[in-house]
Amino acid sequence: LIGSGAVGQGLLEILRSKADELQQEYGFTARVVAVVTKSRGALYHPQGLDIAQIIAALKAGGLAHYQATAERDWDALRLARDGQFDVLIEASPTDLQTGQPALDIVRAALTNGKDVVLANKGPVAVAYAELRALAAANQRHLRFEGTVMGGTPSIRLALQALAGCRITQVRGIVNGTTNYILTQMESGQAYDTALAQAQALGYAETDPSGDVDGWDAAGKAAILSALIFNKRLDVAQMSVQGISGITAASVAEAAAQQQRWKLIATITPDGGSVQPVRLPISNPLAGVSGITNAITYTTDLLGDVTLIGPGAGGVQTGFALLSDLLDIQRLRG
Amino acid sequence: LIGSGAVGQGLLEILRSKADELQQEYGFTARVVAVVTKSRGALYHPQGLDIAQIIAALKAGGLAHYQATAERDWDALRLARDGQFDVLIEASPTDLQTGQPALDIVRAALTNGKDVVLANKGPVAVAYAELRALAAANQRHLRFEGTVMGGTPSIRLALQALAGCRITQVRGIVNGTTNYILTQMESGQAYDTALAQAQALGYAETDPSGDVDGWDAAGKAAILSALIFNKRLDVAQMSVQGISGITAASVAEAAAQQQRWKLIATITPDGGSVQPVRLPISNPLAGVSGITNAITYTTDLLGDVTLIGPGAGGVQTGFALLSDLLDIQRLRG
Repeated sequence: LIGSGAVGQGLLEILRSKADELQQEYGFTARVVAVVTKSRGALYHPQGLDIAQIIAALKAGGLAHYQATAERDWDALRLARDGQFDVLIEASPTDLQTGQPALDIVRAALTNGKDVVLANKGPVAVAYAELRALAAANQRHLRFEGTVMGGTPSIRLALQALAGCRITQVRGIVNGTTNYILTQMESGQAYDTALAQAQALGYAETDPSGDVDGWDAAGKAAILSALIFNKRLDVAQMSVQGISGITAASVAEAAAQQQRWKLIATITPDGGSVQPVRLPISNPLAGVSGITNAITYTTDLLGDVTLIGPGAGGVQTGFALLSDLLDIQRLRG
Repeated sequence: LIGSGAVGQGLLEILRSKADELQQEYGFTARVVAVVTKSRGALYHPQGLDIAQIIAALKAGGLAHYQATAERDWDALRLARDGQFDVLIEASPTDLQTGQPALDIVRAALTNGKDVVLANKGPVAVAYAELRALAAANQRHLRFEGTVMGGTPSIRLALQALAGCRITQVRGIVNGTTNYILTQMESGQAYDTALAQAQALGYAETDPSGDVDGWDAAGKAAILSALIFNKRLDVAQMSVQGISGITAASVAEAAAQQQRWKLIATITPDGGSVQPVRLPISNPLAGVSGITNAITYTTDLLGDVTLIGPGAGGVQTGFALLSDLLDIQRLRG
């Protein structure tokens, strides 16, 4: 496990609290052999670490608080190259421009014959085609359910459950912060007030531009374009518009016409964009409120299929990592 | 392939029109070795039949019009017992009381070491636990995506994509006919007018009671209860109420309070019911219009996850059969 933020801790918490259930229902037992963080230490023990102790150590401030035996001088790249393990889980912070340092770590793990599961959007947004080919060449699995809509299985729906359909368009509400702000504005709040409330609740950063200017949504659009249309979108070249220009008056005007403003990422085989769109309330995406996310896949055989669920959260995205692990186990038979 | 109605023909049409695409993208090639119908003849040829000719023969009135070589005296049970094939596809008419004659055919195929894919709700609603155990004992796959929400992958979502979550409640709009009628009533139509229109469009039968009295939804609730909660619900013992008591006035009254009437199947570990419910428009199920279906899974780790899509249709449910075939191929590696 690379990274020990909310998502990594969410996964560890699930593995601890659901150990019996996962064993009984899926025959799944997790052995965590390494946790490597950037600033909170590292642990490695090929025979397995104590998950409850890892959680306690992280809560106490860092892995130095872990008492049991472990090697503590491994970095992520060395682990990916030379460690003994089955699956590398990448849950360190995202860099949408370079994908680094996670990209090199993922490359090393696949080359070293390991399966890879990512919650980190960077490597997938920047180099999906390369990583997919590298995984295939090494006969390894590459999974990344947590990179879009957190734990809501939007990627598994597109790639597995809709396999056999041709997806012709993707439209999604893939940023919860902006959807929360727009929802608050429908009850009459001004943009600035709604943003301040989102910050107070921890949904938006102190510098909210990554969310409100549409860049987070654009990164997810790039991932969806790569995996569904085999087309790399450069976020810097995309048409991206945020929600800061939407006024309380335009929200009220839309409501009067049975419409709602939503920040929509649209991806087709020809490209992608992120734009505020006025949707009629009969559109399933129009009914998605608060921090909830949603994606509509338009397909040849089924028409529109829409999935609605949480788009972030440590436990929720931790579940995405677990679901990828279960999928890999399922394919191993 | 047992059955040659809209769903069976939908599958054949997809296999014909997408043959190249399925081969290229999934390495999937279908060989149809038998088609057995109740009143339109039977074909069996272990080396494979001509799919385009089967479609043409059915359009011309029956399999007697099929020109190429085939044995024509096999019935479904004999085929399931003694035929040479990999997967039995059951798409004959549904009997929610007994599951027959499909139930005995499915039993025979599993016992004979064949994988089974069903669009027919009967055997799953009546005997899921038995069939699941029989499949496991014979190390065979049993799939039935087409039994709930047509081709929209509601079952794959619950059993595979949400694996690792505990589902605590299921709520769904699982009958398109009643949802169409309720949607029409929102624009001011009386119940009788809306029903007549649904009949004119082919959404409702001449005797509409299976839909409007809630029995079709109850059958789907029984399937969801069996597969998600391992609990058999007897449709005859369930609390089932249809939509015929809903008036234009009560629809208008709900709208005035920002609510919508929906026919909701609810399933928990304790049981199931089908009832008209007034949902606030902030509920994702409230925004589901016309013949579209939807299901909300309430889970421990993700909260609510909602899937919206088509709930019926020959091509759509034919796709469900294809997606089950692709899933089986995927597991075979």
